[in-house]
Amino acid sequence: MTSIQAPEVLISEVGPRDGLQSVKATMPTADKLRWIDALASAGLREIEVASFVPAQLLPQMADAAQVVQHALRHTDVRIMALVPNLRGAQAALQAGAQKLTLPVSVSPAHSLANVRKTPEDMVEEVQAVLRLRDDIAPGVFVEVGMSTAFGCTLQGQVPEDDVLRLAQLLAQAGVDEIGLSDTTGMANPAQVRRLFQRMFQEIGPLTGAAHLHNTRGLGLANALAAYEAGVRTFDSSLGGLGGCPYAPGASGNVVTEDLVFMFEAMGVSTGIDLNLLMAARAPLKAGLPGEPLYGMTPEAGLPKGWRT
Amino acid sequence: MTSIQAPEVLISEVGPRDGLQSVKATMPTADKLRWIDALASAGLREIEVASFVPAQLLPQMADAAQVVQHALRHTDVRIMALVPNLRGAQAALQAGAQKLTLPVSVSPAHSLANVRKTPEDMVEEVQAVLRLRDDIAPGVFVEVGMSTAFGCTLQGQVPEDDVLRLAQLLAQAGVDEIGLSDTTGMANPAQVRRLFQRMFQEIGPLTGAAHLHNTRGLGLANALAAYEAGVRTFDSSLGGLGGCPYAPGASGNVVTEDLVFMFEAMGVSTGIDLNLLMAARAPLKAGLPGEPLYGMTPEAGLPKGWRT
Repeated sequence: MTSIQAPEVLISEVGPRDGLQSVKATMPTADKLRWIDALASAGLREIEVASFVPAQLLPQMADAAQVVQHALRHTDVRIMALVPNLRGAQAALQAGAQKLTLPVSVSPAHSLANVRKTPEDMVEEVQAVLRLRDDIAPGVFVEVGMSTAFGCTLQGQVPEDDVLRLAQLLAQAGVDEIGLSDTTGMANPAQVRRLFQRMFQEIGPLTGAAHLHNTRGLGLANALAAYEAGVRTFDSSLGGLGGCPYAPGASGNVVTEDLVFMFEAMGVSTGIDLNLLMAARAPLKAGLPGEPLYGMTPEAGLPKGWRT
Repeated sequence: MTSIQAPEVLISEVGPRDGLQSVKATMPTADKLRWIDALASAGLREIEVASFVPAQLLPQMADAAQVVQHALRHTDVRIMALVPNLRGAQAALQAGAQKLTLPVSVSPAHSLANVRKTPEDMVEEVQAVLRLRDDIAPGVFVEVGMSTAFGCTLQGQVPEDDVLRLAQLLAQAGVDEIGLSDTTGMANPAQVRRLFQRMFQEIGPLTGAAHLHNTRGLGLANALAAYEAGVRTFDSSLGGLGGCPYAPGASGNVVTEDLVFMFEAMGVSTGIDLNLLMAARAPLKAGLPGEPLYGMTPEAGLPKGWRT
């Protein structure tokens, strides 16, 4: 906020979608809106605010359209929604979402288990979404996050060539941005650097976000490796909410507060005010009482002499 | 353990000293010995087992000599002790310690507050220790860990030139190894890389361990940066015990389990068996009931398909 030049990295906050989708409780809509407002005030410029899935499957997301419509008042924030398929994309575009993100799993086992489709079937689904976008909302950005890019709890190792092959198919389909997700918290810094370097070689500037988890504590080290490989968009979640529904007690998403602290401490600007970011934990806590939050920087506080 | 070649990095376990010194409870001697035995069994090859300070100041370390003498049975482990001054060094050498580590703070404010001596006075103390070592135990290694190298809670920023100047003085004094400590959890990866690179330029192979804290979640990212700068010795503590006596609730030392997981996942050998390492938490918990332990890898478990 205090920086005159554009931020050097884009922090894409996924808490209101990925986080809220992963917890059992449903946050009341009014609390969601207050939380999103606080995130926007802190300087976040991209927020994944909802998932467009049937309400009977995910009651936490029943108010997705209302949440998108409210969030659009933040004209300097790109309002993003997750859509699992064409039907979800239709609803998200009607609600006014400015960026869609579709998960496409590299692991066939994971893909079949989650959406009963192979990765190749999902590329066709993405093409249908792109056609719809071209027809009714040509300004909207379509991103694919490639799940299980660094390993899969069902399949085990995921060959890097499989990741690159799927990325090529998605690039040919016309996707605007293709990111890599460490869905299962199996990535390590050497692998993250190598795989993103290969992504830049093969699909150049279509290479998108690093979506990293902190399941085994390597979240920030992996983010550092991705940054060094050239990545400039990072998904994370306030308080580390969500990202790991299958491992109770283990943290999932990289914690936004710690990620922003790392970059700002390194002198890499994020455009985010750390004090306001930490203040955005209050509406999150209010809307999800008793839910455990992560984050070392909020616990320790900012160092003595930290610039404001 | 399974690797035939020598490990590529040395993990120096500081829990029995740094960890136990930071908690209020005193671990019974028998539990300490069981814990150290478990650490040795897991493949650790350097363990800081005690601090030689007056028992009235640190009752947790009253059994230091007994602990060193027991630990020496692990002939493939280098048994290390912290000594604050010449008197401590005398006691540690008499007990048979194979490596001494002396903390010398770069920040005059921190140094005066802790030991009522300036950094320059401490260099003289180190010289006295080196003379003693030469006289009575010439095979013993003497390391200095430079505290507050990345920032100080009293002084704020610590100029990098001050760090390098003190390193030069210590090198001229004849210290065997000079490491950098992020005593206050203020380091960031850019700073860690830059400062260790300058250390290698100025004092070459005398550059020693990275002693990093996880106070704001950056511990492993900082370790990665240090590794990339050429550091091959890393201090850490099982369960993240200790390292942060002044910030209750905030973790201190880098967690050995997560650090070893990171390096092994990257294909950088540590010589440590991760399953045995996690099993070494049991004697730690038994000896310090109720003490909170950290570590994401122990919570999440090793990934599917992890080599044994």
